[in-house]
Amino acid sequence: MKPISFKIEKKISGQLGRAGHLDTPHGAIKTPAFVTVGTKATVKSLTPEQVRDLGAQVVLANTYHLYLQPGDKIIKDVGGIQKWMNWSGPTMTDSGGFQVFSLGAAYGKELGKLTKIPAELLLENSPDIDTEEKPKLATIDPNGVTFRSHIDGSAHYFTPEKSIEIQHNIGADIIFAFDECTSPIESIHYQGQSLDRTHRWAKQSLEYHKSKENSKTQALFGIVQGGRHENLRKESAGFIGSLDFDGFGIGGSFAKEDMKNAVKWVNEILPEEKPKHLLGIGEPEDLFYGVENGCDLFDCVAPTRNARNGGLYTKYGKVNILNSKYTNDFTPIDSECNCYTCKNYTRAYLAHLFRAKEMLAATLATIHNLHFIVGLVENIRQSIIDEKFNEFREKFFISYKN
Amino acid sequence: MKPISFKIEKKISGQLGRAGHLDTPHGAIKTPAFVTVGTKATVKSLTPEQVRDLGAQVVLANTYHLYLQPGDKIIKDVGGIQKWMNWSGPTMTDSGGFQVFSLGAAYGKELGKLTKIPAELLLENSPDIDTEEKPKLATIDPNGVTFRSHIDGSAHYFTPEKSIEIQHNIGADIIFAFDECTSPIESIHYQGQSLDRTHRWAKQSLEYHKSKENSKTQALFGIVQGGRHENLRKESAGFIGSLDFDGFGIGGSFAKEDMKNAVKWVNEILPEEKPKHLLGIGEPEDLFYGVENGCDLFDCVAPTRNARNGGLYTKYGKVNILNSKYTNDFTPIDSECNCYTCKNYTRAYLAHLFRAKEMLAATLATIHNLHFIVGLVENIRQSIIDEKFNEFREKFFISYKN
Repeated sequence: MKPISFKIEKKISGQLGRAGHLDTPHGAIKTPAFVTVGTKATVKSLTPEQVRDLGAQVVLANTYHLYLQPGDKIIKDVGGIQKWMNWSGPTMTDSGGFQVFSLGAAYGKELGKLTKIPAELLLENSPDIDTEEKPKLATIDPNGVTFRSHIDGSAHYFTPEKSIEIQHNIGADIIFAFDECTSPIESIHYQGQSLDRTHRWAKQSLEYHKSKENSKTQALFGIVQGGRHENLRKESAGFIGSLDFDGFGIGGSFAKEDMKNAVKWVNEILPEEKPKHLLGIGEPEDLFYGVENGCDLFDCVAPTRNARNGGLYTKYGKVNILNSKYTNDFTPIDSECNCYTCKNYTRAYLAHLFRAKEMLAATLATIHNLHFIVGLVENIRQSIIDEKFNEFREKFFISYKN
Repeated sequence: MKPISFKIEKKISGQLGRAGHLDTPHGAIKTPAFVTVGTKATVKSLTPEQVRDLGAQVVLANTYHLYLQPGDKIIKDVGGIQKWMNWSGPTMTDSGGFQVFSLGAAYGKELGKLTKIPAELLLENSPDIDTEEKPKLATIDPNGVTFRSHIDGSAHYFTPEKSIEIQHNIGADIIFAFDECTSPIESIHYQGQSLDRTHRWAKQSLEYHKSKENSKTQALFGIVQGGRHENLRKESAGFIGSLDFDGFGIGGSFAKEDMKNAVKWVNEILPEEKPKHLLGIGEPEDLFYGVENGCDLFDCVAPTRNARNGGLYTKYGKVNILNSKYTNDFTPIDSECNCYTCKNYTRAYLAHLFRAKEMLAATLATIHNLHFIVGLVENIRQSIIDEKFNEFREKFFISYKN
């Protein structure tokens, strides 16, 4: 008996994209779906009821953060992440690999999941520029990663087995194999070495997982890496796809223009019948690309982080609520939006809350942005069911400008 | 037709205390009642639905803060404070007098509503110690107060008429006359001068209010001052009580032990049939003293401010959730409490949220603390109706330790 089951309901004609249904031990996820991020076992500024009411189906927490605070043992003792955070629906945890990247290769370089990177750094034989940078907080060896806590500077060591053990303790429905997320500006030589490591770690993660009872109630997704290189991406999809994972994550830190290619290369090779999660991606245009290229799940901190900074999604694009023209604008953020925030509050009031640095600003803005993004993916799903994906896509981008 | 009507339902035998029913244009308030503070037109970290669900009947916003940000005209334009903040129940605004005190006499001295003050400073003939302190942000003249905005340093001038005009624009159901809140360490000479000013301003506030249409829909409460001096307090109660106010506020910055006396002196003189609001007081022991000495309404930032700092009320007294013993305590804050927080979250999770500096910490803690204080006053009310006030009081303090 597998912990999850996935069924494709409808495909986009002539493309990789599909609408599906993913059953987990804590309920179903209709895919494609946007996974709400709750890094430290809370979706920032919202109660779980607010998360559910805005339409979210599933929450993803971060292994690295919860391991450091409060510690995975405490979450195990209370009965798992659902009980810990009072969220009764499906949950996921990542493997910690991306945080290791943030503390290591990306440290001090402002590299994120999607980054605008100068063309000269993206040449096939670009030098490894890491050597002259400031000291990293993480170092990688063949067996794992040593890193320092961002909270108290204490030293820790993650191996694939350790990452899975922590994720077993946290107890989410879907967990991820331990991987190395590389920077797009690393040399192809480094990318190849790293990929070998990620593949070895994937096998170790899977073996450790299968050896435990938790594999009956928690699904394990393998992660495809390979940077921006077609040969490496395809090699990774072939290798990871051949292993008995319950689903797959597509990882990486991307130059924006590379992301689409990477997703397509990979999903043409990965087993069609298993769910695919595009890790850390969530702006509207990227969601469309991801869906049409066969991704079923997406998570991203952008909607919640943008919300806390006053960047609000509308059908015309993002607006900055702190713009002075909203000071006495008594209309909602988006007049056609039916989220709690738009039904009850004006732009003027939101602008006031942001200026007054009131916490309710973050709450109302987060509800709106998550409702927008979760709802967008829900509408994309419906358009696939209705065989109108391309029309829906076209119509969306006539009004939405980035 | 008066904007509000007040009916005494039951008195505590042999004491000034009573349970009553206060009708306002936006619904009834069963008294005694704790008024939830929403300084900047938001109860910090809560949605209005969360405020209502925890049992709050009425919200008080601050005139000084709303005048500066977003400006009272904007609130008038949108249709008043209820519409502005999406709170459909009764509302109040204070007069700005206490904020002027905070910027003036109290500035840099850590004086609040209740302060522990060295005995030598409370002598009848204590010198006026103001002269040697750092520059104040507010200066008082016979006609009003000049103050500087805490936001941008801009200069502003409040008169009684200006305060009432602003409160008319904000549009709360119950508003307050402009007063000077004095420091308990001012000399009796200064207290007397100040009281004359407050009385003159009370008359001006009332005359201006009565000359406007708003007096049909907004009730005006006069404020009794007089510091810690029996003769001044009684003089003030006699004078303010003789004016045609809809109700009364009892103001002042108190040395804790003085507060009880002041309230009793005043309420023995003020017209019995009108509602009385003890301004800015809200710790459990003070609520009991206030009720038994004839106060019907209370507001205080303590429950919400304590909550944001991790100080949580229980029937045994306040606990600091950051105490290390709560790290893996899987019980609720108070096992007999039926608030949303106690029904759904453990002390361990709350401790985690506070340590992780997550906003949900403030939300959950605020819900609990307000539920505790609002519920306490509700239970005090019921004990009066049931003729069991003294037993209830005694029982409460057997377990509750400050």
